[in-house]
Amino acid sequence: MNFKEDTITAIITPPGVGAISVIRVSGKDSISAVDRIFSGTSSLSKAPTHSLKYGKIVTAEGEILDDVVVSVFRSPHSYTGEDSVEISCHGNPNITRRITELLYDLGIKNAEPGEFTKRAFLNGKLDLSQAEAVMELISARSDASLKGARNQLDGLISSKVNSLRYMLVNTSSLVELELDFAEEDIEFVDHSELIKRITNIIHELDNLLSTYAFGRVVRDGVNVALVGQPNVGKSSLLNYLLKEYRAIVSSIPGTTRDIIREEVVIDGVLYRLFDTAGIRETQDEIEIEGVRRSREAVTNADLILFINDVVQNISVDLYEEISKLTDEKKIIVVLNKVDIKHSSLLKADVAISAKTGEGINALFDLLKEKALGSESYSEKGAVVSNLRHYNCLKRAKTNLEAALDSCNNNLSGEFIAVDLRNAENSLAEITGEITTDDILNNIFMHFCIGK
Amino acid sequence: MNFKEDTITAIITPPGVGAISVIRVSGKDSISAVDRIFSGTSSLSKAPTHSLKYGKIVTAEGEILDDVVVSVFRSPHSYTGEDSVEISCHGNPNITRRITELLYDLGIKNAEPGEFTKRAFLNGKLDLSQAEAVMELISARSDASLKGARNQLDGLISSKVNSLRYMLVNTSSLVELELDFAEEDIEFVDHSELIKRITNIIHELDNLLSTYAFGRVVRDGVNVALVGQPNVGKSSLLNYLLKEYRAIVSSIPGTTRDIIREEVVIDGVLYRLFDTAGIRETQDEIEIEGVRRSREAVTNADLILFINDVVQNISVDLYEEISKLTDEKKIIVVLNKVDIKHSSLLKADVAISAKTGEGINALFDLLKEKALGSESYSEKGAVVSNLRHYNCLKRAKTNLEAALDSCNNNLSGEFIAVDLRNAENSLAEITGEITTDDILNNIFMHFCIGK
Repeated sequence: MNFKEDTITAIITPPGVGAISVIRVSGKDSISAVDRIFSGTSSLSKAPTHSLKYGKIVTAEGEILDDVVVSVFRSPHSYTGEDSVEISCHGNPNITRRITELLYDLGIKNAEPGEFTKRAFLNGKLDLSQAEAVMELISARSDASLKGARNQLDGLISSKVNSLRYMLVNTSSLVELELDFAEEDIEFVDHSELIKRITNIIHELDNLLSTYAFGRVVRDGVNVALVGQPNVGKSSLLNYLLKEYRAIVSSIPGTTRDIIREEVVIDGVLYRLFDTAGIRETQDEIEIEGVRRSREAVTNADLILFINDVVQNISVDLYEEISKLTDEKKIIVVLNKVDIKHSSLLKADVAISAKTGEGINALFDLLKEKALGSESYSEKGAVVSNLRHYNCLKRAKTNLEAALDSCNNNLSGEFIAVDLRNAENSLAEITGEITTDDILNNIFMHFCIGK
Repeated sequence: MNFKEDTITAIITPPGVGAISVIRVSGKDSISAVDRIFSGTSSLSKAPTHSLKYGKIVTAEGEILDDVVVSVFRSPHSYTGEDSVEISCHGNPNITRRITELLYDLGIKNAEPGEFTKRAFLNGKLDLSQAEAVMELISARSDASLKGARNQLDGLISSKVNSLRYMLVNTSSLVELELDFAEEDIEFVDHSELIKRITNIIHELDNLLSTYAFGRVVRDGVNVALVGQPNVGKSSLLNYLLKEYRAIVSSIPGTTRDIIREEVVIDGVLYRLFDTAGIRETQDEIEIEGVRRSREAVTNADLILFINDVVQNISVDLYEEISKLTDEKKIIVVLNKVDIKHSSLLKADVAISAKTGEGINALFDLLKEKALGSESYSEKGAVVSNLRHYNCLKRAKTNLEAALDSCNNNLSGEFIAVDLRNAENSLAEITGEITTDDILNNIFMHFCIGK
């Protein structure tokens, strides 16, 4: 890898207009390069690490481009681990463009997405799961997902994975010992001990794998499908939520044409609400596609709100249709319009009025408990929320199950050793101690520019 | 003013998601307040000015919110002149929200738009025209307007205004001298000398006022109306420009329904292009409003492109209509479609092909010269681009003309002195040496939050 040769730059603040924008330059030439376009009371070459200098950015022709404050970080005491400079200039895209153009003229390259963090990883400032957490942290849409990313950045996943690897290494050493003496044909290892240990690690892996359901909905949000007969108030419920949680709601243009999708953060959790049009079989050519999409939304939903009102009778047929598409435990029966005087006998999970807001808090408490359980993030310890990590863990489990088979079939220690080593490697991929260019590229290409 | 009592905070980077966002805290409690939520290797209270500290933002309950780098600036060595802290955190709106919420809990107030810059002005870090230049600098849409804002921030307007004030003070002192000795009834002052001096200052004011035409178009862009018979290629020209200058063109939803307005930056200058529908009188009820708007666009335009093609005859009637609405010097006659074999005898100012791009550069060279003249910004010296400054200068001129009248009518020196003092005050308003809360509020309310 020749990345150490290049000095790179990118705007690291959000795009657009603001009071200030920040341009980061990282690499061995960063300080000397910025020094050539910076005019202050003293040269940056003398500036100690973690110091700020006020000055002006000046072109070779002597034109002043902007007043700036420059932060100097010296290797290894920077985000990337390299010498780095951050230029705080006025937040105008024309100014940042002109300053970066000056840097390009000095041979500095544009940073690729995630390149600063990739360098931080390659320089040992972060392990791979922590580097991934940086991206999660930036894109977290709710307080709960923020907390998950934070835990991952603080190394909760890494230390859990490392403790599993430690257990594996200890177990492997038993087998290696047997192999060292293999020619003497002595069975040193008590296979029952080996089986006990491997089973124990599989158990730990299962515990960690089981956190993924929680980690995924916390990270990506809870998919909720709204189903009900016409006029029971699905749209009123959506409108009520949009009105009450306006500032934090974003309406996402649906990828499917006939399904309205809204996002809302309530009590720190992101919900993605799908207003289904209809899920009953139809002969109408035009409706068929809408029904297909609604059914898909129900199938993919984490939870289904089956909405009824106090005026109409519950549609037993509709409930049966939903049950065919999803696990009944995921269905929450809602009785709407309870602000109207009524004598509904429907035994609903929760009674609400999308008009007055009555019961809406109870509804979201129920959604939260059904989706996330009663435990909070802090009680959970390490939580897997990243699909790559989940797949590595599953692979490690498969490797260990193969090892277990070999033990049970009294196969030679060599077979067992290979499986254990594969399991260890699968785990090492999570923290990036074993990795490939492909894995790294695939991870960092999803980062934003400037990180 | 009790602003010195409050410590204020705002996010100073553009809104949205990015690698980092920066939160500024300014005021006497800024360092101690941030210290209460900051956990690093050492306390911020000991940090010298212009130093950077790495650490974590931690809630009272011990929850880590984010890893941050904190910049410490000590009074008077900061943007505002007060103690200030800038917190660089990850660029997620949920993170900046939670950190600012922690600051609110410590009694820190949200900064109003422009409040940091207002404090910089009140603390004598910038004069008022420079403070205004900060806003211009952030919102500049082209390199030319950037240059104008830069010159203003560097004090070109201020020093020109101050030199005029100096001339005024010297002139006033002659009159004051006369007044001091008024009871002795001796005419000390040679009124012809006074008249010469005042005339000279008026001449200087006129020179400065005359730069406003240039300053305004540089700052706000050149308004160009496209007029022509149907099918001469107005839309093709717009489409060509949109295609060629795609990255820097923004299509602004027109405030008027029937006029297409596009913005394009070419060779550092912003052009606002209005594609007029038709400007001929019509009886058609529906068209009347469109015609009214088109005529308005022609009347308000800095330049008019009267577009013809090689196929149709020039419409003499249309040219006459345009001439009634605007100064003929503003009309540029364009001959389009010169890629077609033709024998057009039209004597156009410029011949183009919106299909091949031929002549487009020449067209914009002509537009630039007509709108801005041949002098560049650097050759111009002080240029007035701000309407408030322009009005202050005009008021000063009116005051001086009154003084001149009094001189010519041999009125008592007291009258002359009052007019001269008014002129001086008008100039002092530009740099803010004389100002009112109303003036300040009116200026800073147009700033963005965080500046």
